[in-house]
Amino acid sequence: MVNWKEIDQNVREWIKEAGNRIRETFASTVHISTKSNRNDLVTNVDRETEQFFAERIRKYYPDHKILGEEGFGDQIDSVDGVVWVIDPIDGTMNFIHQKRNFMISIGIYYNGEGYLGYIYDVVHKELYFAEKGHGAYLNDQKLLPLEETVLQDAVIGLNPTWVVENKKIDHNLLIPIVKEARGLRTYGCAALEMVYVACGWLDAYITTRLSPWDFAGGKVIVEEVGGKVTTLSGKPLSILENSSVFASKPGLHKQILETYLKDYKD
Amino acid sequence: MVNWKEIDQNVREWIKEAGNRIRETFASTVHISTKSNRNDLVTNVDRETEQFFAERIRKYYPDHKILGEEGFGDQIDSVDGVVWVIDPIDGTMNFIHQKRNFMISIGIYYNGEGYLGYIYDVVHKELYFAEKGHGAYLNDQKLLPLEETVLQDAVIGLNPTWVVENKKIDHNLLIPIVKEARGLRTYGCAALEMVYVACGWLDAYITTRLSPWDFAGGKVIVEEVGGKVTTLSGKPLSILENSSVFASKPGLHKQILETYLKDYKD
Repeated sequence: MVNWKEIDQNVREWIKEAGNRIRETFASTVHISTKSNRNDLVTNVDRETEQFFAERIRKYYPDHKILGEEGFGDQIDSVDGVVWVIDPIDGTMNFIHQKRNFMISIGIYYNGEGYLGYIYDVVHKELYFAEKGHGAYLNDQKLLPLEETVLQDAVIGLNPTWVVENKKIDHNLLIPIVKEARGLRTYGCAALEMVYVACGWLDAYITTRLSPWDFAGGKVIVEEVGGKVTTLSGKPLSILENSSVFASKPGLHKQILETYLKDYKD
Repeated sequence: MVNWKEIDQNVREWIKEAGNRIRETFASTVHISTKSNRNDLVTNVDRETEQFFAERIRKYYPDHKILGEEGFGDQIDSVDGVVWVIDPIDGTMNFIHQKRNFMISIGIYYNGEGYLGYIYDVVHKELYFAEKGHGAYLNDQKLLPLEETVLQDAVIGLNPTWVVENKKIDHNLLIPIVKEARGLRTYGCAALEMVYVACGWLDAYITTRLSPWDFAGGKVIVEEVGGKVTTLSGKPLSILENSSVFASKPGLHKQILETYLKDYKD
Protein backbone atom coordinates (compact mmCIF):
# COMPACT_ATOMS: atom_id res chain seq x y z
CA MET A 1 0.00 0.00 0.00
CA VAL A 2 1.63 3.24 -1.14
CA ASN A 3 1.22 6.16 1.26
CA TRP A 4 0.84 8.95 -1.30
CA LYS A 5 0.08 11.57 1.32
CA GLU A 6 3.35 10.96 3.14
CA ILE A 7 5.27 10.87 -0.13
CA ASP A 8 3.72 14.20 -1.08
CA GLN A 9 4.75 15.80 2.20
CA ASN A 10 8.33 14.59 1.78
CA VAL A 11 8.63 15.66 -1.86
CA ARG A 12 7.47 19.16 -1.03
CA GLU A 13 10.07 19.49 1.70
CA TRP A 14 12.84 18.10 -0.49
CA ILE A 15 11.94 20.34 -3.43
CA LYS A 16 12.03 23.37 -1.16
CA GLU A 17 15.44 22.38 0.17
CA ALA A 18 16.80 21.62 -3.32
CA GLY A 19 15.48 24.99 -4.53
CA ASN A 20 17.28 26.77 -1.70
CA ARG A 21 20.50 24.99 -2.58
CA ILE A 22 20.22 25.90 -6.25
CA ARG A 23 19.49 29.54 -5.50
CA GLU A 24 22.53 29.61 -3.22
CA THR A 25 24.75 28.43 -6.08
CA PHE A 26 23.82 31.60 -7.97
CA ALA A 27 26.10 33.65 -5.73
CA SER A 28 29.04 31.42 -6.58
CA THR A 29 28.03 30.93 -10.22
CA VAL A 30 29.51 34.18 -11.45
CA HIS A 31 32.78 33.31 -9.72
CA ILE A 32 32.94 29.74 -11.01
CA SER A 33 31.97 30.53 -14.56
CA THR A 34 35.01 32.75 -14.96
CA LYS A 35 37.41 29.89 -14.31
CA SER A 36 35.71 26.84 -15.76
CA ASN A 37 33.43 26.17 -18.62
CA ARG A 38 29.75 26.86 -18.33
CA ASN A 39 28.74 23.30 -19.11
CA ASP A 40 30.82 21.93 -16.22
CA LEU A 41 29.13 24.26 -13.84
CA VAL A 42 25.62 23.33 -14.75
CA THR A 43 26.49 19.68 -14.72
CA ASN A 44 27.62 20.01 -11.14
CA VAL A 45 24.41 21.65 -10.03
CA ASP A 46 22.37 19.14 -12.01
CA ARG A 47 24.27 16.25 -10.50
CA GLU A 48 24.24 17.50 -6.95
CA THR A 49 20.52 18.11 -7.13
CA GLU A 50 19.71 14.68 -8.52
CA GLN A 51 22.00 13.04 -5.98
CA PHE A 52 20.24 14.97 -3.22
CA PHE A 53 16.87 13.52 -4.31
CA ALA A 54 18.24 10.03 -4.95
CA GLU A 55 19.75 9.80 -1.47
CA ARG A 56 16.53 10.81 0.21
CA ILE A 57 14.36 8.53 -1.90
CA ARG A 58 16.63 5.55 -1.22
CA LYS A 59 16.63 6.28 2.50
CA TYR A 60 12.86 6.72 2.86
CA TYR A 61 11.63 4.43 0.10
CA PRO A 62 14.21 1.71 -0.52
CA ASP A 63 11.78 -0.33 -2.63
CA HIS A 64 11.02 2.54 -5.04
CA LYS A 65 12.90 2.92 -8.32
CA ILE A 66 14.49 6.09 -9.67
CA LEU A 67 14.78 7.19 -13.28
CA GLY A 68 16.96 10.30 -13.52
CA GLU A 69 18.81 12.32 -16.12
CA GLU A 70 22.15 12.45 -14.34
CA GLY A 71 22.81 8.80 -13.61
CA PHE A 72 22.08 8.55 -9.90
CA GLY A 73 18.98 6.49 -10.61
CA ASP A 74 18.44 2.86 -11.50
CA GLN A 75 18.60 0.88 -14.73
CA ILE A 76 14.92 0.42 -15.41
CA ASP A 77 13.35 -1.95 -17.89
CA SER A 78 9.91 -2.27 -16.36
CA VAL A 79 7.37 0.23 -15.10
CA ASP A 80 6.29 -2.01 -12.22
CA GLY A 81 5.97 -0.53 -8.75
CA VAL A 82 6.73 3.05 -7.78
CA VAL A 83 9.09 4.89 -10.15
CA TRP A 84 10.35 8.40 -9.48
CA VAL A 85 11.16 10.15 -12.77
CA ILE A 86 13.42 13.10 -12.05
CA ASP A 87 14.93 15.97 -13.97
CA PRO A 88 16.88 17.96 -11.39
CA ILE A 89 17.18 20.95 -13.76
CA ASP A 90 14.97 20.96 -16.83
CA GLY A 91 16.00 23.79 -19.14
CA THR A 92 19.75 23.51 -18.78
CA MET A 93 20.53 26.15 -21.37
CA ASN A 94 18.24 28.61 -19.58
CA PHE A 95 19.94 27.78 -16.29
CA ILE A 96 23.33 28.65 -17.79
CA HIS A 97 22.28 31.59 -19.91
CA GLN A 98 19.52 33.13 -17.84
CA LYS A 99 19.59 31.78 -14.31
CA ARG A 100 15.80 31.62 -14.69
CA ASN A 101 13.21 29.71 -16.71
CA PHE A 102 14.43 26.30 -15.53
CA MET A 103 12.51 23.83 -13.41
CA ILE A 104 12.91 20.91 -11.05
CA SER A 105 10.63 18.22 -12.50
CA ILE A 106 9.45 15.12 -10.65
CA GLY A 107 6.83 12.61 -11.74
CA ILE A 108 5.96 9.70 -9.48
CA TYR A 109 4.47 6.77 -11.36
CA TYR A 110 2.90 3.53 -10.16
CA ASN A 111 2.79 0.59 -12.55
CA GLY A 112 3.37 2.99 -15.43
CA GLU A 113 0.69 5.48 -14.49
CA GLY A 114 1.40 8.98 -13.19
CA TYR A 115 0.15 9.63 -9.65
CA LEU A 116 2.04 12.73 -8.53
CA GLY A 117 3.59 15.52 -10.61
CA TYR A 118 5.76 18.40 -9.39
CA ILE A 119 7.30 21.18 -11.44
CA TYR A 120 9.11 23.81 -9.40
CA ASP A 121 10.17 27.20 -10.74
CA VAL A 122 13.18 27.64 -8.52
CA VAL A 123 13.67 31.37 -9.15
CA HIS A 124 10.09 32.51 -8.70
CA LYS A 125 9.29 29.90 -6.03
CA GLU A 126 6.26 28.69 -7.92
CA LEU A 127 5.27 25.05 -7.42
CA TYR A 128 3.01 23.45 -10.02
CA PHE A 129 1.56 20.25 -8.66
CA ALA A 130 -1.06 17.59 -9.39
CA GLU A 131 -2.24 14.43 -7.74
CA LYS A 132 -4.12 12.16 -10.10
CA GLY A 133 -7.83 12.48 -9.40
CA HIS A 134 -7.36 15.15 -6.74
CA GLY A 135 -6.69 18.33 -8.69
CA ALA A 136 -3.81 20.46 -9.91
CA TYR A 137 -2.39 23.57 -8.28
CA LEU A 138 -0.05 26.49 -8.79
CA ASN A 139 1.12 27.04 -5.23
CA ASP A 140 -2.21 27.26 -3.34
CA GLN A 141 -4.31 28.20 -6.33
CA LYS A 142 -6.36 25.44 -7.89
CA LEU A 143 -6.04 25.17 -11.67
CA LEU A 144 -9.27 25.18 -13.67
CA PRO A 145 -10.20 22.44 -16.14
CA LEU A 146 -8.94 23.29 -19.65
CA GLU A 147 -11.59 24.33 -22.14
CA GLU A 148 -11.58 23.28 -25.78
CA THR A 149 -10.10 25.66 -28.30
CA VAL A 150 -9.09 25.80 -31.96
CA LEU A 151 -5.76 26.56 -33.60
CA GLN A 152 -6.89 29.94 -34.89
CA ASP A 153 -7.37 31.15 -31.28
CA ALA A 154 -4.36 29.29 -29.91
CA VAL A 155 -0.93 30.25 -28.65
CA ILE A 156 1.41 27.33 -29.39
CA GLY A 157 4.74 26.46 -27.80
CA LEU A 158 6.99 25.53 -30.72
CA ASN A 159 10.70 26.05 -31.32
CA PRO A 160 11.69 27.79 -34.60
CA THR A 161 14.20 24.95 -35.09
CA TRP A 162 11.35 22.58 -36.05
CA VAL A 163 9.96 24.81 -38.80
CA VAL A 164 13.21 24.98 -40.75
CA GLU A 165 14.83 21.90 -42.25
CA ASN A 166 16.06 19.65 -39.42
CA LYS A 167 16.84 16.04 -38.58
CA LYS A 168 13.91 15.31 -36.28
CA ILE A 169 10.77 16.12 -38.25
CA ASP A 170 9.62 17.10 -41.73
CA HIS A 171 9.31 20.84 -41.13
CA ASN A 172 6.68 21.14 -43.84
CA LEU A 173 4.21 19.46 -41.50
CA LEU A 174 4.58 22.19 -38.90
CA ILE A 175 4.69 25.27 -41.13
CA PRO A 176 0.88 25.41 -41.57
CA ILE A 177 0.52 25.34 -37.77
CA VAL A 178 2.77 28.40 -37.50
CA LYS A 179 0.77 30.19 -40.17
CA GLU A 180 -2.64 29.41 -38.65
CA ALA A 181 -1.94 29.89 -34.94
CA ARG A 182 -2.76 33.14 -33.15
CA GLY A 183 0.71 33.19 -31.59
CA LEU A 184 3.90 31.19 -31.03
CA ARG A 185 6.13 30.96 -27.98
CA THR A 186 9.40 29.19 -27.20
CA TYR A 187 10.71 28.95 -23.63
CA GLY A 188 13.38 26.27 -23.99
CA CYS A 189 12.17 24.23 -21.03
CA ALA A 190 9.76 21.34 -21.57
CA ALA A 191 8.58 21.30 -17.97
CA LEU A 192 7.81 25.00 -18.11
CA GLU A 193 5.98 24.65 -21.42
CA MET A 194 3.91 21.76 -20.10
CA VAL A 195 2.78 23.62 -16.98
CA TYR A 196 2.01 26.60 -19.19
CA VAL A 197 -0.37 24.26 -21.04
CA ALA A 198 -1.82 23.09 -17.70
CA CYS A 199 -2.46 26.71 -16.70
CA GLY A 200 -4.01 27.55 -20.09
CA TRP A 201 -1.17 30.02 -20.83
CA LEU A 202 -0.16 27.99 -23.84
CA ASP A 203 -2.91 26.14 -25.69
CA ALA A 204 -0.50 23.46 -26.85
CA TYR A 205 3.16 22.51 -26.78
CA ILE A 206 4.80 20.62 -29.64
CA THR A 207 8.28 19.16 -29.58
CA THR A 208 10.10 16.47 -31.48
CA ARG A 209 12.02 14.49 -28.89
CA LEU A 210 12.02 14.38 -25.11
CA SER A 211 13.32 11.98 -22.51
CA PRO A 212 10.93 10.60 -19.89
CA TRP A 213 12.33 12.94 -17.19
CA ASP A 214 11.47 15.92 -19.39
CA PHE A 215 7.76 15.07 -19.58
CA ALA A 216 6.94 12.78 -16.64
CA GLY A 217 6.02 15.48 -14.11
CA GLY A 218 4.27 17.73 -16.61
CA LYS A 219 2.16 14.92 -18.02
CA VAL A 220 0.50 14.28 -14.65
CA ILE A 221 -0.31 17.97 -14.24
CA VAL A 222 -1.62 18.55 -17.78
CA GLU A 223 -3.80 15.45 -17.71
CA GLU A 224 -5.25 16.31 -14.32
CA VAL A 225 -6.80 19.49 -15.80
CA GLY A 226 -8.16 17.62 -18.82
CA GLY A 227 -5.33 18.20 -21.27
CA LYS A 228 -4.05 15.56 -23.68
CA VAL A 229 -0.43 14.41 -23.70
CA THR A 230 0.69 12.06 -26.49
CA THR A 231 3.35 11.70 -29.14
CA LEU A 232 3.00 13.78 -32.31
CA SER A 233 1.17 10.87 -33.91
CA GLY A 234 -1.25 10.60 -31.01
CA LYS A 235 0.27 7.55 -29.29
CA PRO A 236 0.54 7.25 -25.51
CA LEU A 237 3.84 8.16 -23.85
CA SER A 238 5.84 5.68 -21.80
CA ILE A 239 8.36 6.53 -19.08
CA LEU A 240 10.61 3.85 -20.59
CA GLU A 241 11.04 5.63 -23.93
CA ASN A 242 12.15 8.87 -25.51
CA SER A 243 9.49 10.31 -27.79
CA SER A 244 8.00 13.31 -29.50
CA VAL A 245 5.55 15.13 -27.23
CA PHE A 246 2.32 16.93 -27.99
CA ALA A 247 0.57 18.41 -24.94
CA SER A 248 -2.62 20.28 -25.66
CA LYS A 249 -6.03 21.48 -24.67
CA PRO A 250 -8.77 19.08 -25.72
CA GLY A 251 -10.38 19.85 -29.08
CA LEU A 252 -7.21 21.51 -30.29
CA HIS A 253 -5.37 18.21 -29.76
CA LYS A 254 -7.75 16.42 -32.09
CA GLN A 255 -7.74 19.25 -34.63
CA ILE A 256 -3.95 19.37 -34.89
CA LEU A 257 -3.55 15.59 -35.04
CA GLU A 258 -6.20 15.14 -37.71
CA THR A 259 -5.56 18.22 -39.81
CA TYR A 260 -1.84 18.90 -39.56
CA LEU A 261 -0.06 15.80 -38.25
CA LYS A 262 -1.94 12.98 -39.99
CA ASP A 263 1.15 12.24 -42.12
CA TYR A 264 3.56 12.22 -39.17
CA LYS A 265 4.98 8.86 -38.09
CA ASP A 266 6.72 8.38 -34.73
CA MET B 1 16.96 72.46 -17.39
CA VAL B 2 15.37 69.03 -17.04
CA ASN B 3 15.36 67.65 -13.50
CA TRP B 4 15.97 63.97 -14.36
CA LYS B 5 16.31 62.97 -10.72
CA GLU B 6 12.87 64.27 -9.85
CA ILE B 7 11.36 62.71 -12.98
CA ASP B 8 12.93 59.36 -12.01
CA GLN B 9 11.43 59.52 -8.53
CA ASN B 10 7.99 60.26 -9.92
CA VAL B 11 8.11 57.58 -12.62
CA ARG B 12 9.04 54.91 -10.09
CA GLU B 13 6.10 55.86 -7.88
CA TRP B 14 3.69 55.93 -10.81
CA ILE B 15 4.88 52.59 -12.18
CA LYS B 16 4.42 51.01 -8.77
CA GLU B 17 0.90 52.42 -8.52
CA ALA B 18 0.01 51.37 -12.08
CA GLY B 19 1.35 47.88 -11.37
CA ASN B 20 -0.83 47.60 -8.27
CA ARG B 21 -3.87 48.64 -10.29
CA ILE B 22 -3.15 46.08 -13.02
CA ARG B 23 -2.63 43.27 -10.53
CA GLU B 24 -5.94 44.22 -8.92
CA THR B 25 -7.73 43.79 -12.25
CA PHE B 26 -6.66 40.13 -12.25
CA ALA B 27 -9.25 39.32 -9.61
CA SER B 28 -12.00 40.75 -11.79
CA THR B 29 -10.50 39.49 -15.03
CA VAL B 30 -11.91 36.00 -14.77
CA HIS B 31 -15.33 37.45 -14.12
CA ILE B 32 -15.23 39.97 -16.93
CA SER B 33 -13.80 37.62 -19.51
CA THR B 34 -16.81 35.35 -19.16
CA LYS B 35 -19.22 38.04 -20.27
CA SER B 36 -17.30 40.11 -22.78
CA ASN B 37 -14.64 39.46 -25.29
CA ARG B 38 -11.04 39.16 -24.22
CA ASN B 39 -9.87 41.93 -26.50
CA ASP B 40 -12.25 44.42 -24.89
CA LEU B 41 -10.91 43.61 -21.50
CA VAL B 42 -7.31 44.09 -22.29
CA THR B 43 -8.05 47.28 -24.16
CA ASN B 44 -9.64 48.68 -21.04
CA VAL B 45 -6.64 47.87 -18.86
CA ASP B 46 -4.29 49.20 -21.54
CA ARG B 47 -6.29 52.39 -21.85
CA GLU B 48 -6.76 52.99 -18.17
CA THR B 49 -3.06 52.51 -17.54
CA GLU B 50 -1.99 54.88 -20.29
CA GLN B 51 -4.53 57.44 -19.16
CA PHE B 52 -3.19 57.15 -15.62
CA PHE B 53 0.33 58.00 -16.82
CA ALA B 54 -0.83 60.72 -19.22
CA GLU B 55 -2.77 62.54 -16.51
CA ARG B 56 0.19 62.56 -14.14
CA ILE B 57 2.68 63.63 -16.80
CA ARG B 58 0.42 66.49 -17.93
CA LYS B 59 -0.07 67.64 -14.35
CA TYR B 60 3.60 67.53 -13.33
CA TYR B 61 5.27 68.29 -16.68
CA PRO B 62 2.87 70.28 -18.83
CA ASP B 63 5.62 71.13 -21.34
CA HIS B 64 6.58 67.50 -21.98
CA LYS B 65 5.12 65.53 -24.88
CA ILE B 66 3.61 62.04 -24.75
CA LEU B 67 3.75 59.32 -27.38
CA GLY B 68 1.53 56.42 -26.38
CA GLU B 69 -0.03 53.35 -27.92
CA GLU B 70 -3.57 53.98 -26.74
CA GLY B 71 -4.23 57.51 -27.94
CA PHE B 72 -3.96 59.53 -24.72
CA GLY B 73 -0.73 61.10 -25.93
CA ASP B 74 0.03 63.88 -28.38
CA GLN B 75 0.36 64.06 -32.14
CA ILE B 76 4.10 64.27 -32.48
CA ASP B 77 6.07 65.22 -35.57
CA SER B 78 9.28 66.34 -33.93
CA VAL B 79 11.56 64.81 -31.33
CA ASP B 80 12.35 68.20 -29.76
CA GLY B 81 12.18 68.57 -26.00
CA VAL B 82 11.17 65.85 -23.55
CA VAL B 83 9.06 63.06 -25.03
CA TRP B 84 7.63 60.23 -22.93
CA VAL B 85 7.19 57.09 -25.05
CA ILE B 86 4.76 54.77 -23.31
CA ASP B 87 3.42 51.29 -23.80
CA PRO B 88 1.09 50.70 -20.85
CA ILE B 89 1.01 46.95 -21.53
CA ASP B 90 3.58 45.55 -23.90
CA GLY B 91 2.77 41.91 -24.67
CA THR B 92 -0.99 42.21 -24.98
CA MET B 93 -1.50 38.61 -26.08
CA ASN B 94 0.45 37.39 -23.05
CA PHE B 95 -1.63 39.64 -20.81
CA ILE B 96 -4.82 38.05 -22.14
CA HIS B 97 -3.61 34.48 -22.42
CA GLN B 98 -1.18 34.21 -19.54
CA LYS B 99 -1.66 37.09 -17.13
CA ARG B 100 2.13 37.18 -17.07
CA ASN B 101 5.04 37.99 -19.39
CA PHE B 102 3.77 41.49 -20.15
CA MET B 103 5.48 44.74 -19.24
CA ILE B 104 4.88 48.42 -18.64
CA SER B 105 7.40 50.16 -20.89
CA ILE B 106 8.45 53.80 -20.62
CA GLY B 107 11.25 55.57 -22.43
CA ILE B 108 11.93 59.24 -21.74
CA TYR B 109 13.74 60.95 -24.58
CA TYR B 110 15.25 64.44 -24.90
CA ASN B 111 15.76 65.89 -28.36
CA GLY B 112 15.48 62.37 -29.79
CA GLU B 113 17.93 60.72 -27.44
CA GLY B 114 16.94 58.24 -24.74
CA TYR B 115 17.72 59.41 -21.18
CA LEU B 116 15.61 57.16 -18.97
CA GLY B 117 14.23 53.67 -19.64
CA TYR B 118 11.84 51.65 -17.48
CA ILE B 119 10.48 48.17 -18.13
CA TYR B 120 8.33 46.78 -15.35
CA ASP B 121 7.36 43.13 -15.01
CA VAL B 122 4.06 43.71 -13.26
CA VAL B 123 3.54 40.13 -12.08
CA HIS B 124 7.00 39.47 -10.68
CA LYS B 125 7.53 43.07 -9.52
CA GLU B 126 10.82 43.33 -11.34
CA LEU B 127 11.87 46.78 -12.53
CA TYR B 128 14.48 47.01 -15.26
CA PHE B 129 15.87 50.53 -15.44
CA ALA B 130 18.62 52.59 -16.98
CA GLU B 131 19.68 56.19 -16.93
CA LYS B 132 21.93 57.13 -19.83
CA GLY B 133 25.50 57.27 -18.60
CA HIS B 134 24.61 56.23 -15.06
CA GLY B 135 24.09 52.46 -15.32
CA ALA B 136 21.32 49.92 -15.73
CA TYR B 137 19.61 47.92 -13.01
CA LEU B 138 17.25 45.03 -12.33
CA ASN B 139 15.63 46.23 -9.12
CA ASP B 140 18.69 47.05 -6.95
CA GLN B 141 21.11 44.84 -8.85
CA LYS B 142 23.45 46.60 -11.27
CA LEU B 143 23.61 45.02 -14.72
CA LEU B 144 27.07 44.16 -16.04
CA PRO B 145 28.39 45.41 -19.38
CA LEU B 146 27.57 42.94 -22.18
CA GLU B 147 30.46 40.93 -23.51
CA GLU B 148 30.98 40.10 -27.17
CA THR B 149 29.73 36.75 -28.41
CA VAL B 150 29.21 34.85 -31.67
CA LEU B 151 26.08 33.28 -33.15
CA GLN B 152 27.28 29.72 -32.50
CA ASP B 153 27.23 30.42 -28.72
CA ALA B 154 24.13 32.59 -28.79
CA VAL B 155 20.53 32.26 -27.69
CA ILE B 156 18.41 34.37 -30.03
CA GLY B 157 14.95 35.80 -29.50
CA LEU B 158 13.12 35.15 -32.77
CA ASN B 159 9.50 34.28 -33.51
CA PRO B 160 8.85 31.16 -35.65
CA THR B 161 6.55 33.34 -37.76
CA TRP B 162 9.56 35.05 -39.37
CA VAL B 163 11.21 31.82 -40.52
CA VAL B 164 8.23 30.63 -42.54
CA GLU B 165 6.91 32.57 -45.52
CA ASN B 166 5.43 35.86 -44.28
CA LYS B 167 4.65 39.40 -45.39
CA LYS B 168 7.28 41.25 -43.38
CA ILE B 169 10.62 39.70 -44.28
CA ASP B 170 12.17 37.20 -46.70
CA HIS B 171 12.28 34.21 -44.35
CA ASN B 172 15.25 32.72 -46.24
CA LEU B 173 17.44 35.42 -44.68
CA LEU B 174 16.65 34.24 -41.16
CA ILE B 175 16.73 30.46 -41.65
CA PRO B 176 20.55 30.26 -41.47
CA ILE B 177 20.43 32.15 -38.16
CA VAL B 178 18.07 29.51 -36.75
CA LYS B 179 20.34 26.73 -37.96
CA GLU B 180 23.55 28.25 -36.57
CA ALA B 181 22.36 29.59 -33.21
CA ARG B 182 22.83 27.62 -29.99
CA GLY B 183 19.20 28.20 -29.05
CA LEU B 184 16.03 30.11 -29.92
CA ARG B 185 13.45 31.72 -27.68
CA THR B 186 10.15 33.52 -28.26
CA TYR B 187 8.42 35.41 -25.46
CA GLY B 188 5.89 37.50 -27.37
CA CYS B 189 6.79 40.75 -25.62
CA ALA B 190 9.33 43.11 -27.18
CA ALA B 191 10.04 44.91 -23.91
CA LEU B 192 10.72 41.60 -22.16
CA GLU B 193 12.96 40.39 -24.97
CA MET B 194 14.92 43.64 -24.94
CA VAL B 195 15.59 43.53 -21.21
CA TYR B 196 16.56 39.87 -21.59
CA VAL B 197 19.21 41.13 -24.02
CA ALA B 198 20.25 43.80 -21.50
CA CYS B 199 20.65 41.13 -18.80
CA GLY B 200 22.58 38.82 -21.16
CA TRP B 201 19.79 36.20 -20.98
CA LEU B 202 19.24 36.51 -24.70
CA ASP B 203 22.25 37.33 -26.84
CA ALA B 204 20.11 39.05 -29.44
CA TYR B 205 16.50 39.81 -30.30
CA ILE B 206 15.31 40.04 -33.89
CA THR B 207 11.89 41.24 -34.99
CA THR B 208 10.43 42.64 -38.16
CA ARG B 209 8.27 45.54 -37.09
CA LEU B 210 7.77 47.45 -33.86
CA SER B 211 6.23 50.75 -32.92
CA PRO B 212 8.31 53.31 -31.00
CA TRP B 213 6.51 52.50 -27.73
CA ASP B 214 7.55 48.85 -28.09
CA PHE B 215 11.27 49.63 -28.17
CA ALA B 216 11.78 53.08 -26.61
CA GLY B 217 12.28 51.94 -23.01
CA GLY B 218 14.25 48.83 -23.87
CA LYS B 219 16.62 50.69 -26.18
CA VAL B 220 17.84 52.93 -23.36
CA ILE B 221 18.49 49.90 -21.13
CA VAL B 222 20.22 47.74 -23.75
CA GLU B 223 22.46 50.58 -24.91
CA GLU B 224 23.44 51.48 -21.36
CA VAL B 225 25.06 48.04 -20.93
CA GLY B 226 26.87 48.30 -24.28
CA GLY B 227 24.34 46.51 -26.48
CA LYS B 228 23.48 47.63 -30.00
CA VAL B 229 19.92 48.50 -31.04
CA THR B 230 19.26 49.20 -34.71
CA THR B 231 16.97 48.17 -37.54
CA LEU B 232 17.65 44.84 -39.24
CA SER B 233 19.76 46.68 -41.80
CA GLY B 234 21.79 48.39 -39.09
CA LYS B 235 20.17 51.82 -39.26
CA PRO B 236 19.43 53.89 -36.15
CA LEU B 237 15.91 53.77 -34.70
CA SER B 238 13.74 56.87 -34.36
CA ILE B 239 10.87 57.36 -31.90
CA LEU B 240 8.94 58.91 -34.78
CA GLU B 241 8.88 55.73 -36.89
CA ASN B 242 7.87 52.09 -36.88
CA SER B 243 10.75 49.82 -37.81
CA SER B 244 12.36 46.42 -37.68
CA VAL B 245 14.42 45.99 -34.52
CA PHE B 246 17.67 44.16 -33.90
CA ALA B 247 18.97 44.38 -30.33
CA SER B 248 22.17 42.50 -29.65
CA LYS B 249 25.38 42.03 -27.78
CA PRO B 250 28.31 43.72 -29.49
CA GLY B 251 30.30 41.48 -31.83
CA LEU B 252 27.25 39.35 -32.50
CA HIS B 253 25.49 42.45 -33.85
CA LYS B 254 28.21 42.99 -36.43
CA GLN B 255 28.43 39.27 -37.28
CA ILE B 256 24.70 38.92 -37.93
CA LEU B 257 24.44 42.16 -39.93
CA GLU B 258 27.41 41.37 -42.12
CA THR B 259 26.97 37.63 -42.56
CA TYR B 260 23.21 37.03 -42.49
CA LEU B 261 21.38 40.31 -43.06
CA LYS B 262 23.55 42.03 -45.66
CA ASP B 263 20.79 41.57 -48.27
CA TYR B 264 18.03 42.92 -46.04
CA LYS B 265 16.61 46.33 -46.89
CA ASP B 266 14.45 48.29 -44.43
